[in-house]
Amino acid sequence: MQKKYRRNYGCPTEFAVDVLSGKWKTVILAYLHVRPMRYSELRTLLPTLSDKVLTDRLRDVVSAGLVVRRKSTTAARAEFYALSERGESLGTVLSGLYAWGNRHAKTFGVHVGAPLQRLRENAKTRI
Amino acid sequence: MQKKYRRNYGCPTEFAVDVLSGKWKTVILAYLHVRPMRYSELRTLLPTLSDKVLTDRLRDVVSAGLVVRRKSTTAARAEFYALSERGESLGTVLSGLYAWGNRHAKTFGVHVGAPLQRLRENAKTRI
Repeated sequence: MQKKYRRNYGCPTEFAVDVLSGKWKTVILAYLHVRPMRYSELRTLLPTLSDKVLTDRLRDVVSAGLVVRRKSTTAARAEFYALSERGESLGTVLSGLYAWGNRHAKTFGVHVGAPLQRLRENAKTRI
Repeated sequence: MQKKYRRNYGCPTEFAVDVLSGKWKTVILAYLHVRPMRYSELRTLLPTLSDKVLTDRLRDVVSAGLVVRRKSTTAARAEFYALSERGESLGTVLSGLYAWGNRHAKTFGVHVGAPLQRLRENAKTRI
């Protein structure tokens, strides 16, 4: 179901936060900001998510016009998810959140994984 | 109460999103990114929030080390809220969310206010 937005927001930040609301949309967008991915790749990157939650959140970001589903030009019948132009324009925010989390996790006594690095190492699997 | 963070996060973005989780913390940080402010100024900028919610969210961002309370050097007994160094390092993210919301609101059929512009116009009230 399409998310309902209010007609009026006090400020642009409040609206942007509402578009990204919830725990997983931003994480999914950050992965797709590295490169387009198949469902199975996102599945591997987000092992703690149920299929239902991943599917629902992907539907959310597609419905918000941030992500598009595309047919692969190489593999027959393969589909992948990619940031739309509207999603790409969140690039600074997505990179900024990743960099901030990476830089400050230790000062919070928290450990963070490095999935984007793994992604880059597996660059051969690019679509 | 201090927010409890998990010990392990799948990726830095997931951790950053958890720190900023909820609707109002990011908006408050975005305002304080323009300049330090007194409680009463934030109060005026966020008229839809109850005093309880504003106080609780301010406590959250202070507790996360993103914001500090400072005594004003000019007005006796006046206190204000300012981004800490840790909070300032979210600057790119905060500006990015504001810019994105501003740029895309119309394409979502949504109206957004311009409180930061008002803030700049009222620059005389700077602490």
